[in-house]
Amino acid sequence: MNYAKRFRVEPGSKVDLSRVDASFKDRHESHTQALPEIERDRDRLRELQYRMYAEGKRSLLICLQGRDAAGKDGTIKHVLGAMNPQGCRVTGFKVPSAEEAGHDFLWRYHKAAPARGQVAIFNRSHYEDVLVVRVHDLVSKTVWSKRYAQINAFERMLHENGTHILKFYLHIDPEEQLARFKQRLDDPARHWKISDGDYAERPYWDEYTAAFEDALSQCSTDQAPWFIIPANHKWFRNLAIARIVAETLESLDMRFPEPSVDIAEIRKKYHALVDAEGQGGRSEPGEHHHKGQ
Amino acid sequence: MNYAKRFRVEPGSKVDLSRVDASFKDRHESHTQALPEIERDRDRLRELQYRMYAEGKRSLLICLQGRDAAGKDGTIKHVLGAMNPQGCRVTGFKVPSAEEAGHDFLWRYHKAAPARGQVAIFNRSHYEDVLVVRVHDLVSKTVWSKRYAQINAFERMLHENGTHILKFYLHIDPEEQLARFKQRLDDPARHWKISDGDYAERPYWDEYTAAFEDALSQCSTDQAPWFIIPANHKWFRNLAIARIVAETLESLDMRFPEPSVDIAEIRKKYHALVDAEGQGGRSEPGEHHHKGQ
Repeated sequence: MNYAKRFRVEPGSKVDLSRVDASFKDRHESHTQALPEIERDRDRLRELQYRMYAEGKRSLLICLQGRDAAGKDGTIKHVLGAMNPQGCRVTGFKVPSAEEAGHDFLWRYHKAAPARGQVAIFNRSHYEDVLVVRVHDLVSKTVWSKRYAQINAFERMLHENGTHILKFYLHIDPEEQLARFKQRLDDPARHWKISDGDYAERPYWDEYTAAFEDALSQCSTDQAPWFIIPANHKWFRNLAIARIVAETLESLDMRFPEPSVDIAEIRKKYHALVDAEGQGGRSEPGEHHHKGQ
Repeated sequence: MNYAKRFRVEPGSKVDLSRVDASFKDRHESHTQALPEIERDRDRLRELQYRMYAEGKRSLLICLQGRDAAGKDGTIKHVLGAMNPQGCRVTGFKVPSAEEAGHDFLWRYHKAAPARGQVAIFNRSHYEDVLVVRVHDLVSKTVWSKRYAQINAFERMLHENGTHILKFYLHIDPEEQLARFKQRLDDPARHWKISDGDYAERPYWDEYTAAFEDALSQCSTDQAPWFIIPANHKWFRNLAIARIVAETLESLDMRFPEPSVDIAEIRKKYHALVDAEGQGGRSEPGEHHHKGQ
């Protein structure tokens, strides 16, 4: 199954989350059964990220959104963490600092956008400014209602300047969220991160649903599509996201740049006389052709 | 063998790199034989990084220095990349931008210092300002000679504010460097990154040696030690660095914070009536206890 096609929000369509099965798992039965496919896609991610880095022309921005316990952290740990940290930067967005709040809402996200050849992962993103901000009336409707178009213009600009954008909404049921909160209670190593606040957003479940639906409907575009990922099964979420990111990168058809020098020339110039060279240092050469470290 | 002890530059001692065996590999025979130990330490790194993140009090700064092809990138890919990118940020330092050059030399490094709970990896570091800058006379001796004390004061300040610092000099022979350059020539997928410039620093081998020796001698302190890592064998380099980082983190004796709430209370308040709750969403619960994703 083509997950990118299946889970992509068609630009211009109206999203109704109650019609999306959060427990969908395609033809797979279990984590164990899906694992080889996840592993294969993690390997592709690594390889493709290296090509993106080598090519140095384009970049990738991945936005992760979802309710508490939807699996944003887990996706980073189990899927996106496969990439080399040298070419991949994660930025988590929490309550804005005073300096951030002093600027337009997109300022802090723009600062964290990926450089050419790099991957940026946003753990929560500029969409918070039409989600929590809207649900809790942190700004007036006049302000937040203009943001959908502002976000689309921002993302279009990024895309036109070489940044590919993938946005994932991790879709879980309220029952699944509660079960995950409970799992934390049952695991002493996770007690430190439990707070009463975890539960504080649950009474607003429907308001969040409406806010997510608007963001997904108004801001899924050809240049920055939203994907609704069934995420009740963590492993299926991992499988789907790994697949979609890998296939997107593959579709970019990235090439290693042509050498900037004449390789034969370099070989002749510097390696013809290796034995005659002997500058400095000690004459105790290591094992020179240790492959596949 | 205690690698931290063996490879650490004793504060106040005078380093003579010609006396350090770059091909040292301890009791290990091969990569294959060392691999289980490397894997075990990578696992420890992941676990300890999570504790550092949970504790949220201290941070870790790892500086990687070494000549071209010494293995800085490889160390990140094969060792430090084991850490969760959410808590670990790599910053590579190249020629300063105009804005960076407009500030004191430590400004751009300070900006990239790790937040509490985080790990920062510097691929090249503030030491460049007493290495390449010194070798190529980019500033006068009056300027660079003061930097050793400035660096020590900077690192002491970081340490006193909770940042643990580990600095690794990856030690290779000139023969090994040349062999690695040649390997790139033999691998078409790496031709794109070959330049004449790779070879341009080789005539300055001895000048760099002197500059490294001064930095290692003057700036190895109890709060920010230097380690000279034998790096002709890539796998031994990986083994030694993984071990030293893991043991350092372990010595910090990091603890999960105490829960900020009464867990029993939370359980009673939110989970006693799960079945009665049934807010919003669809009634198709996922598989709730998928462990070990």
